[in-house]
Amino acid sequence: MASATQHPNHQLISSEDVEGTEVYDTAGKNIGEVDHLMIDKMSGRVAYVVISFGGFLGLGHSHYPVPWGALKYDTSLGGFRTSINQQQLKDAPEFSDDSWGDRSWETRTHQHYNVPQYW
Amino acid sequence: MASATQHPNHQLISSEDVEGTEVYDTAGKNIGEVDHLMIDKMSGRVAYVVISFGGFLGLGHSHYPVPWGALKYDTSLGGFRTSINQQQLKDAPEFSDDSWGDRSWETRTHQHYNVPQYW
Repeated sequence: MASATQHPNHQLISSEDVEGTEVYDTAGKNIGEVDHLMIDKMSGRVAYVVISFGGFLGLGHSHYPVPWGALKYDTSLGGFRTSINQQQLKDAPEFSDDSWGDRSWETRTHQHYNVPQYW
Repeated sequence: MASATQHPNHQLISSEDVEGTEVYDTAGKNIGEVDHLMIDKMSGRVAYVVISFGGFLGLGHSHYPVPWGALKYDTSLGGFRTSINQQQLKDAPEFSDDSWGDRSWETRTHQHYNVPQYW
């Protein structure tokens, strides 16, 4: 599994390596890993981190898109930290492949997680 | 080959699909393709696009890291457009795997391509 700790002193990670970066809760417990990123082609900003939560949270889906602003990279953990919890994921706006092009879904999702819009 | 035109109406592209996105010069001529991106883990910004120029330019290397600011996504082309030319690539600061963690190299590279620093 790719890990962001391959170059622990580097702030930069390859798009080829980002899959598999671990995700931790506020207590430092491993709750999932990055499946892939969704990147805004115009601005070059990461818009969403699609996280695989596995069976951990007993959720209806295994993958959830989370706005970039809801995660913070923690160099000491070598992964992302987030305060998002199970209930927030369950209550998040319903997602489909068309959601990526849907500003209404994007707006509701950012409001849901209480993070600023990236656009 | 992955293409950014798979979802032509979407501004967002998956990190899994970004490899293979075409790169064009100012005249619209295809000069290479994206090999991968280098992403700043802290800010979520794309810092560099590593471009595979193939044999096209007769260069010493096949892959060159180019600052994000030197490219612009063109929705009509379904790829990136850049004004970077062969001589600029040849004259660019020498690159190694350690360069990603080297602010001196990063500074010189951004100055060389005359684009603002991303950090």
